[in-house]
Amino acid sequence: MRPSSSPSEEPAPGLLSGLFGGVDVDAELTDPALLQAMLDVERALAEACADVGLVPREAAAAIGAVCTADRFDVPGLGRAAEGAGNPVVPLVHALTELVPPEARPWVHHGATSQDVLDSALVLVAVRATQPLLRDLDVCADRCAGLAAHHRGTVMVARTLGQQASPTTFGLKAAGWLVGLIGAGDRLARVRGGLPVQLGGAAGTLAAHGDAGVAVSARLAERLDLARPLLPWHTDRSPVLDLAAALGATLSATGKIALDVGLLAQTEVGEVSEGDGGVDGRGGSSSMPHKRNPVDSVLVTALARRAPGLVGTLYATSVQEHERAAGGWHAEWEPLLELLRLAGAAAARTRKMLEGLQVHPDRMRANLDATGGLVMAESVAARLAPHLGRSEAHDVVARAAAEHQGFRDALLASPEVREHLGAEGLDEALDPGSWLGAAVDLVDRALQAHRDRPAPTR
Amino acid sequence: MRPSSSPSEEPAPGLLSGLFGGVDVDAELTDPALLQAMLDVERALAEACADVGLVPREAAAAIGAVCTADRFDVPGLGRAAEGAGNPVVPLVHALTELVPPEARPWVHHGATSQDVLDSALVLVAVRATQPLLRDLDVCADRCAGLAAHHRGTVMVARTLGQQASPTTFGLKAAGWLVGLIGAGDRLARVRGGLPVQLGGAAGTLAAHGDAGVAVSARLAERLDLARPLLPWHTDRSPVLDLAAALGATLSATGKIALDVGLLAQTEVGEVSEGDGGVDGRGGSSSMPHKRNPVDSVLVTALARRAPGLVGTLYATSVQEHERAAGGWHAEWEPLLELLRLAGAAAARTRKMLEGLQVHPDRMRANLDATGGLVMAESVAARLAPHLGRSEAHDVVARAAAEHQGFRDALLASPEVREHLGAEGLDEALDPGSWLGAAVDLVDRALQAHRDRPAPTR
Amino acid sequence: MRPSSSPSEEPAPGLLSGLFGGVDVDAELTDPALLQAMLDVERALAEACADVGLVPREAAAAIGAVCTADRFDVPGLGRAAEGAGNPVVPLVHALTELVPPEARPWVHHGATSQDVLDSALVLVAVRATQPLLRDLDVCADRCAGLAAHHRGTVMVARTLGQQASPTTFGLKAAGWLVGLIGAGDRLARVRGGLPVQLGGAAGTLAAHGDAGVAVSARLAERLDLARPLLPWHTDRSPVLDLAAALGATLSATGKIALDVGLLAQTEVGEVSEGDGGVDGRGGSSSMPHKRNPVDSVLVTALARRAPGLVGTLYATSVQEHERAAGGWHAEWEPLLELLRLAGAAAARTRKMLEGLQVHPDRMRANLDATGGLVMAESVAARLAPHLGRSEAHDVVARAAAEHQGFRDALLASPEVREHLGAEGLDEALDPGSWLGAAVDLVDRALQAHRDRPAPTR
Amino acid sequence: MRPSSSPSEEPAPGLLSGLFGGVDVDAELTDPALLQAMLDVERALAEACADVGLVPREAAAAIGAVCTADRFDVPGLGRAAEGAGNPVVPLVHALTELVPPEARPWVHHGATSQDVLDSALVLVAVRATQPLLRDLDVCADRCAGLAAHHRGTVMVARTLGQQASPTTFGLKAAGWLVGLIGAGDRLARVRGGLPVQLGGAAGTLAAHGDAGVAVSARLAERLDLARPLLPWHTDRSPVLDLAAALGATLSATGKIALDVGLLAQTEVGEVSEGDGGVDGRGGSSSMPHKRNPVDSVLVTALARRAPGLVGTLYATSVQEHERAAGGWHAEWEPLLELLRLAGAAAARTRKMLEGLQVHPDRMRANLDATGGLVMAESVAARLAPHLGRSEAHDVVARAAAEHQGFRDALLASPEVREHLGAEGLDEALDPGSWLGAAVDLVDRALQAHRDRPAPTR
Repeated sequence: MRPSSSPSEEPAPGLLSGLFGGVDVDAELTDPALLQAMLDVERALAEACADVGLVPREAAAAIGAVCTADRFDVPGLGRAAEGAGNPVVPLVHALTELVPPEARPWVHHGATSQDVLDSALVLVAVRATQPLLRDLDVCADRCAGLAAHHRGTVMVARTLGQQASPTTFGLKAAGWLVGLIGAGDRLARVRGGLPVQLGGAAGTLAAHGDAGVAVSARLAERLDLARPLLPWHTDRSPVLDLAAALGATLSATGKIALDVGLLAQTEVGEVSEGDGGVDGRGGSSSMPHKRNPVDSVLVTALARRAPGLVGTLYATSVQEHERAAGGWHAEWEPLLELLRLAGAAAARTRKMLEGLQVHPDRMRANLDATGGLVMAESVAARLAPHLGRSEAHDVVARAAAEHQGFRDALLASPEVREHLGAEGLDEALDPGSWLGAAVDLVDRALQAHRDRPAPTR
Repeated sequence: MRPSSSPSEEPAPGLLSGLFGGVDVDAELTDPALLQAMLDVERALAEACADVGLVPREAAAAIGAVCTADRFDVPGLGRAAEGAGNPVVPLVHALTELVPPEARPWVHHGATSQDVLDSALVLVAVRATQPLLRDLDVCADRCAGLAAHHRGTVMVARTLGQQASPTTFGLKAAGWLVGLIGAGDRLARVRGGLPVQLGGAAGTLAAHGDAGVAVSARLAERLDLARPLLPWHTDRSPVLDLAAALGATLSATGKIALDVGLLAQTEVGEVSEGDGGVDGRGGSSSMPHKRNPVDSVLVTALARRAPGLVGTLYATSVQEHERAAGGWHAEWEPLLELLRLAGAAAARTRKMLEGLQVHPDRMRANLDATGGLVMAESVAARLAPHLGRSEAHDVVARAAAEHQGFRDALLASPEVREHLGAEGLDEALDPGSWLGAAVDLVDRALQAHRDRPAPTR
Repeated sequence: MRPSSSPSEEPAPGLLSGLFGGVDVDAELTDPALLQAMLDVERALAEACADVGLVPREAAAAIGAVCTADRFDVPGLGRAAEGAGNPVVPLVHALTELVPPEARPWVHHGATSQDVLDSALVLVAVRATQPLLRDLDVCADRCAGLAAHHRGTVMVARTLGQQASPTTFGLKAAGWLVGLIGAGDRLARVRGGLPVQLGGAAGTLAAHGDAGVAVSARLAERLDLARPLLPWHTDRSPVLDLAAALGATLSATGKIALDVGLLAQTEVGEVSEGDGGVDGRGGSSSMPHKRNPVDSVLVTALARRAPGLVGTLYATSVQEHERAAGGWHAEWEPLLELLRLAGAAAARTRKMLEGLQVHPDRMRANLDATGGLVMAESVAARLAPHLGRSEAHDVVARAAAEHQGFRDALLASPEVREHLGAEGLDEALDPGSWLGAAVDLVDRALQAHRDRPAPTR
Repeated sequence: MRPSSSPSEEPAPGLLSGLFGGVDVDAELTDPALLQAMLDVERALAEACADVGLVPREAAAAIGAVCTADRFDVPGLGRAAEGAGNPVVPLVHALTELVPPEARPWVHHGATSQDVLDSALVLVAVRATQPLLRDLDVCADRCAGLAAHHRGTVMVARTLGQQASPTTFGLKAAGWLVGLIGAGDRLARVRGGLPVQLGGAAGTLAAHGDAGVAVSARLAERLDLARPLLPWHTDRSPVLDLAAALGATLSATGKIALDVGLLAQTEVGEVSEGDGGVDGRGGSSSMPHKRNPVDSVLVTALARRAPGLVGTLYATSVQEHERAAGGWHAEWEPLLELLRLAGAAAARTRKMLEGLQVHPDRMRANLDATGGLVMAESVAARLAPHLGRSEAHDVVARAAAEHQGFRDALLASPEVREHLGAEGLDEALDPGSWLGAAVDLVDRALQAHRDRPAPTR
């Protein structure tokens, strides 16, 4: 059983952080939550040592009994941490003070500061990604719903900002879905493999004598974390894996938000956020008519901050000797920040998708706005068997460049009249006739969504 | 006169943030401090509009009278900001409620949210960099002191981790000094040029009629900020300049910290941090003998986080149309974070330098440890006029590769005996004879330090 | 006089690099160009040493006589560089072979590899930024032309992707212009201050005896580079300044490209690239009608690669001791890459702007498409003196939310009828009446453009 | 069977690129190699279409017959690519010219440029990572050899740059090994899952009628790539996964290089690179005695460039609509660059490890240099059961702070005399007695290495 954190207060929204915070995730990222995770490690360490006979069972119980965050003074620890170079040193002092004298020798037994802080940050990551993954699941469900519902909703695909060919909104939503599935599965896999840290001062587990590997295994079990092959004091691959997975989550949600923002442009208008009531979200301080796509904007903003944080964690991952002089310390806040941003992005994307309004009429109108130009590939494809690919391409390109309507220009071409005729041309100009595998692809995505194992977190 | 912020509470140190926070700077980066800056902008805007006759003077006075942060509910604004997409929308609502009815039409007159938030962030940057620059100045003074005092303290220069040739600790400190001067001057220059933001909804200052440019000028004057050529809603060069200068500050302090950390290695031992007393800083939770160079470690950690944040601000700087959908929003927190980290680095470097202990005896011992090998260039240089550069290099390289002592091996070489003799060789092996311009360079650096204008901030 | 590089071959376009290369700049970034710059430094060093009497004048002349890149075997140097850790070591060997025996002792006199490579990279940067700055100047001229020509071309300003209020295309172009001026001036300033590197093995100029500072000064003069306060072997601020300025250049051009790409969207259509002929640029391999905004796309791509490179150079700037074990080496390619990308962006933006087609009719049509909604701020502003700001905002917001036309909905409001009347309303709905300082701002930008000193490069 | 690339020429080493290139990998990253990969995709596409009956078998054969890179003009394609926005457009033109008229309609059938380029880049990645993974395997073997051989070689562990406690060089090498195993396994897993790209112009596979999904499956099979769930034109998770795995590879090799560089410092001297002969690698242009650890330095340099590239690929991964206007294009070169750097790092780390010389005598001397201080934890641990953890810590810390020898100071302490005695103290001061699980951990790592499946690439 993975120990749950003590109920920690949801942090009050700040002037800016309120915009970028996902409530449930944030509660796992507060100082009290981190402190509790550190105490959970100290308790589990004492118990693990007791399990293998290194520490008296009563001492372990006495230590565990005081390992609750509300017994400790966070600002005081913070102040003392400054001189020690990490918050574990003063925590161990304070914890030792709290336990009865006979248990004191067994506090923090055989561990080094990094063992406690790394394990605690892993615990925080495990806990914070629980609501995050739940939000991603809801996002995926919503995208699956959109994909199924709009399986036949024709719209224009856009490449390099230009109208290209027809597609369906169902396929677009299926693409979002597949992105979310990939991100969620990757993150869940990484989460499930996050290891406990235990190496002692030099990574040799020296203070545990012969029992070091056994203590590490028991500690992993008690904290419901994975067992590492070796202590990973300066092998930061767990941090890299987590950073990469969180970055990918921000990328997947960022893609949806970017699409929504562009589809919501005034001139496009194919989707809109929320209910758009007079007093609704997204109002402007100066322009009474504005309905800004707030969720899209903020998820986009969150996603744009991911690469710098991912890059920072890659940069700090090259750590020297048995404990790095700075590289390790540089990880702590960026890792928590990345968890916060990914959590916020998942929560906000959920809200965005739950309120998303789709406008099939505008999709159709935009598709038709160029008088069939977006069917150029379709027409060329039907001409190609007769004219060859290049010649067909050129015939259609010439017609597309004419100032008269595209259909008229095509009909004026002898090749088109000969090989397609007016009826064949109209068929070629029908968007519904040029959707290829769109439905198959939607079904593949929906099947993959249904095939996912139910989350066990 | 630049308005000073209302006395804002110094934030309590957190478990981790306490390690990375520089107290004086942090006080300017809190939510109340940001809120006050936003209110300072609203007040100055009303007054600037009054200056040009757009707003009744009494209305401006009434608005200004309530522009103090403690009248507002930060968490409430944070919560409302989430729906609006920025904190200015609810602030304007709340501010309007507070003023008498007759002044209400004149609140936030002609401005858009971005005008207020950009200007407020600029004010925060101006205020936060004041203690930061002061700390940098103290650091520079301390380096100047070290450079002057150790002008003649011989030590070994190290290139690619290998002992190279002699230098002086004075020159090393002079290098630190020049880095700090460059960083401080750059930051001060950028700070002095940070512009006010005022463009109105579309960047045209439409709501100010003919008076827009005049209002902007008055606003700049009242806030003691620079006048921009145009509104810079989507020209983010002020943010880039600030990011670049803060990043350079973290680089300059990071260089000092890295050097200190390496010089403090057990095997090198040429400097140490603080007084190293039994209960002193840098103790270990497991190893009673450890004296970790905590300040060096943490400044190094701070410096390693700069590139990701600088990169983020460059990445978000490409902003579309008249206001970006996400790029702007993504700037806020990274900019404040960069201010926080740079402030912390300056404060901690100051502490590191103030406590730094220099060990000339260890410097000399390390210089002598290779039996004169570090004088190889010196010997080769004296042989070169006689043998040519390549042949001289090879004669010395061969001697350096011998297992007997370097001096003996050199004396065994006929070329050395012929062209230098024992006496000439000993002169060539004297580190003090091979310092070139070290003293001149120290003096150049000290002169540049003396020539800096006294700070007026 | 700054020595010009020998005419170096313009590199053949590669499959991908052809898309991202700016021809004139690229010629300065080839291996032969870098080699020539290294040789220019060796020649100038010999001459500078001769100037102060350290090296016989004839030896300096003999060295200078062979310092042309075509005498050297680039792949051979590259192969040898691999074992030496930098290309200067084998170059000095090869150069020494080429000069007559009596000049050999004076090759590379008193310098270290980093002196030559840093100075050469600075020379390359100076040379490569010459065409770059010229391209930026042409871009600025073109934007000034657009700003002047379209001073009165009304279009809609867009914020967060939504139509906001009227502006002019002239003001948009003026914004681009100001961005270019800022980027160009910053880059030119940094370029003018790039220093020569000369420190010798340990940064003490030991091998130059008393003459080190004088040699350094002469070397700077001969290469037309700035004199540094100290050798900057591990003070990388010149690299940071250059990186920041190049990044800002990519940001300024990226902003223009992003705007062009969005304005060229099929649904917006306010600008288009090039002449759009049948065989023109931007065709698609599958869609005959497509006219992709290729230049916009590629400049956008270039700009998105800047932050990672800028961040890398900030990350590598913290360099230990007297020469870094890796940090220095990590700079070389990213710096050249950043020069290449910035050069390509400037050249391609120039092409994009030179071919840019502006469609005022589409601008007007888009402005009118929402039936006056974009004039909401204008209407509210005229109601505010009568109703108060909040009430006016709400009256207009309610009308904007009606399904009937905006004008009709407004006229249905008693407040509008009372305070504005139909005539006043129509005036309020006229975009031309709500442009504020747009013309003034364009003039300010044009004046700043005219006031720039003529380039002397 | 995965098609192998045509034998492509190994690129000539450049002045700088020679230092950062890994020969075997580089051959897969040249323009001819990329071109061949694009042609492999065109050939396989024709065949896949023939497999499902969309294209006549003879036409497919005719197309396949000309798909060899040496039939094409790379600079010509590069020049034409510039106008088209990607190199596929001109390649399809040129390819069509080469095939007999009756086959021309079937060239590039139903594909879009991105299908070909994405699939080709995936092929290049698959091919380039083959030698890379082989080099990583050799590195792992070498680390396993070091770990086994030095299982009992005692040395000091260093944390935050300070000597901490004893460890073994075997455990250090085992840590390197585990890092390499993790990086190699991750990269191999990602490599095995890299998907083919096929979506057609709009991602609907429209031009393949009902057969799109089948064609995609056949294409994947023919290229020995994975089948994607959907076309991934704007779902860039394969690129992210590859970037993350390559970045982790650079991190794992960078950690080894950093350790080697620090252990090779003159003052530490515990390892050295290569044979250190007079004419050996790592010589200095100015200092005849220098033996720079060149491989360590260059691998360190390579590793420091990874985070910026990884960050860039995360930044460009948020791609809009059905094909991104710039984000996609920005990926190409950074992805190839990351492959190049990772390949070079693996090749150079291999060389570094193959030549690595280990100096157990210096390890022992450094361990003893502080007179037993590094055994402080050991002494404190033996006192703790008697005195309690805090009191034991303090007794030892006081002795450590004395100026007399550590052993004498400890013996002067009544608590030490009472609870340990001289004999017990000497046992506590023996490094071999305080290695905990070091041997167990080495064995775990070696077992994991033996358990890896033999590579099938």
